[in-house]
Amino acid sequence: MMNLDPILSEMLDPATKGYPLSSRALPISAIAAQRWSVLAGDLPLPLAVIRDSALAHNHAWMRDFTASTGVLLAPHGKTTMAPQIFAQQLAAGAWGITVANVQQLGLCVRFGVRRVIMANQLLGAAEVGAVIRLQEEHPDLEFHFLIDSQAQLVSIEKLAAPRKMSRKLTALVELGVPGGRTGARTYDEAFAVARAVAASRSVALSGLECYEGLQIKGDSDRDQAMVAGLMQRVHDVALACDREGFFAGPSIILSAGGSAAFDIVARDLPMNLSKPVLTILRSGCYVTHDSGFYNRMLEGVKARSGAAWQSRPGLQPALEVWSRVQSCPEPGLAILTMGKRDASFDLEMPIARKRYRPGTDTTPQSVPASWKIANMNDQHAYLRFSAEEAPQVGDLVGCGISHPCTTFDKWRALFTVDDEYRVTGAIRTFF
Amino acid sequence: MMNLDPILSEMLDPATKGYPLSSRALPISAIAAQRWSVLAGDLPLPLAVIRDSALAHNHAWMRDFTASTGVLLAPHGKTTMAPQIFAQQLAAGAWGITVANVQQLGLCVRFGVRRVIMANQLLGAAEVGAVIRLQEEHPDLEFHFLIDSQAQLVSIEKLAAPRKMSRKLTALVELGVPGGRTGARTYDEAFAVARAVAASRSVALSGLECYEGLQIKGDSDRDQAMVAGLMQRVHDVALACDREGFFAGPSIILSAGGSAAFDIVARDLPMNLSKPVLTILRSGCYVTHDSGFYNRMLEGVKARSGAAWQSRPGLQPALEVWSRVQSCPEPGLAILTMGKRDASFDLEMPIARKRYRPGTDTTPQSVPASWKIANMNDQHAYLRFSAEEAPQVGDLVGCGISHPCTTFDKWRALFTVDDEYRVTGAIRTFF
Repeated sequence: MMNLDPILSEMLDPATKGYPLSSRALPISAIAAQRWSVLAGDLPLPLAVIRDSALAHNHAWMRDFTASTGVLLAPHGKTTMAPQIFAQQLAAGAWGITVANVQQLGLCVRFGVRRVIMANQLLGAAEVGAVIRLQEEHPDLEFHFLIDSQAQLVSIEKLAAPRKMSRKLTALVELGVPGGRTGARTYDEAFAVARAVAASRSVALSGLECYEGLQIKGDSDRDQAMVAGLMQRVHDVALACDREGFFAGPSIILSAGGSAAFDIVARDLPMNLSKPVLTILRSGCYVTHDSGFYNRMLEGVKARSGAAWQSRPGLQPALEVWSRVQSCPEPGLAILTMGKRDASFDLEMPIARKRYRPGTDTTPQSVPASWKIANMNDQHAYLRFSAEEAPQVGDLVGCGISHPCTTFDKWRALFTVDDEYRVTGAIRTFF
Repeated sequence: MMNLDPILSEMLDPATKGYPLSSRALPISAIAAQRWSVLAGDLPLPLAVIRDSALAHNHAWMRDFTASTGVLLAPHGKTTMAPQIFAQQLAAGAWGITVANVQQLGLCVRFGVRRVIMANQLLGAAEVGAVIRLQEEHPDLEFHFLIDSQAQLVSIEKLAAPRKMSRKLTALVELGVPGGRTGARTYDEAFAVARAVAASRSVALSGLECYEGLQIKGDSDRDQAMVAGLMQRVHDVALACDREGFFAGPSIILSAGGSAAFDIVARDLPMNLSKPVLTILRSGCYVTHDSGFYNRMLEGVKARSGAAWQSRPGLQPALEVWSRVQSCPEPGLAILTMGKRDASFDLEMPIARKRYRPGTDTTPQSVPASWKIANMNDQHAYLRFSAEEAPQVGDLVGCGISHPCTTFDKWRALFTVDDEYRVTGAIRTFF
């Protein structure tokens, strides 16, 4: 369905961070055959790698999880912005791809994705114009954006009015949480926006949307009550809109779900209405998972999902950033060649997990429990450790990360590796 | 001196964030002629722009400042990683370019820079091999890296031994601060490393280096005492190394200086030795300056630099990120289409400075003092304001940033604009 040829034939060279410094330019399709070894030092550090085995496991895990709960998945593409990974997600059964803005929509369409949810409000001359053009150029494109105010609707109608449109735009009314981000805060506001959309000449109402992710704290009782309350509000508005005949399409979309508590959404969001309901999760971070925030949240997902999911191996951290000890300038401190340009630091610092000492180790070793990344500058990380567990200048250190989104966007290409850290390919990102 | 043709002929298209969504692909050299208007909505938001007038002012300011103090400048290229800006810096009189790693060195060499300081330790098979190759391929390349341990020297010598080298590598011994980052902590350590380098078959000693930037707090008395102490330590080691004949080159490099207190370095670092001394600042952030941390630090620079520099306009914030109000979901809160993927958040949140209301404003307006970006998610910012100064859905908001480095690395291309926010070109980054 997707066409990745333009990516696979794209040439990479040492202008791309992580690419071997003295290798000639190669198309991405030729990289696997080089058999570059991260551990042998074939690639410069820092280096972000994706472990193939963990990535494949996560695709299968999420496919099985959504299949077992009967919900659909439109994974948030903003996490990776990597069409190669979108193709894997669609091949694993995803209904479509979620994006955060129209530039990301354009990339999806370019590479062949034909079902896209934009989990954001559509606004702006460039943006509205591009969406209409894409819909006209691609009659098979199904695209839904969010709307949460009548001001937004008025703005879109003004921009759409002079344009030829062979079909309406389609929108999901967003419900929000007081103190939260976007989304109508009350039943009355949401219903009023839905009524206005239903009466619009340019926009049709295709469903409802909300996002619980920012409210998830890892306290299962509290999280379940919060999500249940939000889902109930979606149900109340959905029933009213359905009764009024506001929903225009052959089916009705209800969508929610990040990567922290998608199990609760999958349980509480589905409902019956007068037309078929498509319940769509939008989890994005599951695909590489992480070694921090999402790894902690997964414990709740598993605990709530019954014995079968507790005994089965959960999502695996697939994304690692490797760097080198460049200096051990005083007791208890090592400086690594990795910084804020290379690894997430927005939720917490990277998590040191593996060490490889060239000339001594044959495989990566687990790091001592005392090793902690305490801080990062633009290009450096500060590794603290207890005296008897000191690294050495030249050691390689592999870190897990917390929050995949803010690591992916630091790399134009991430290399995929096998379990021996030999490069098997490159994943191009588009940020 | 530099060759930017490969960049100017590179095609950009809507796969690049910020590029007009419905424009055909264009070479960078053709972008200015399009006369795209940010305020008219020709480009999608969020959008990072560099104001030409402020950038030109900053180049001239720093040229005049370094000329007036007699020091040289090798601006840190890691800030922008933009060869087009490197070329402007060299044209404005910079001695060379500083980089953070060998990948960045390779980019400099590719585009024609021939004097490079790597303000970091050199280590690793890929990295050492690439440096030797670049030196052999470019006899006119002058490259200096940092060294702060004998372990590092042993590692380099082992990697260099089997390679053909028509000249030695050249290194600056790094002095560090207790509790700081890299660098030898004591006179004895620094002197011992310098002695080992001077005796090395592969590496020659070209000078000394330190970095005061992380210790600058904006308290002038304290900052001056700290920098003076560090410079004194550099002088002590430099005198001893000079006396012993450790410095191998025709001149001796002494280098320090970020963008927070470069005036103190320019005053305190110069010294006389038995050979000509090149005193080299490495400030990077000055080039676009910012609206946060560095803007505050500039007050100290000006206050310490005498009446002429106090009366003259200082560095100007050249870098802005524009986004749109996508939702005003509750009193006092607006959500903007800009997030952690688009603007720095590591030192502080972006600083709202300008508002443009399409259809109402003819030029950008100053924003009310109450407007503050309180938080960002991956793709959203939370703008707080007092009730009587509310923005509207659809408004454009222009934010200054704090810390240029962590905004540049979020954009593959930044558009340059004139004072009416018409696009005059694109600056390619290489992260």
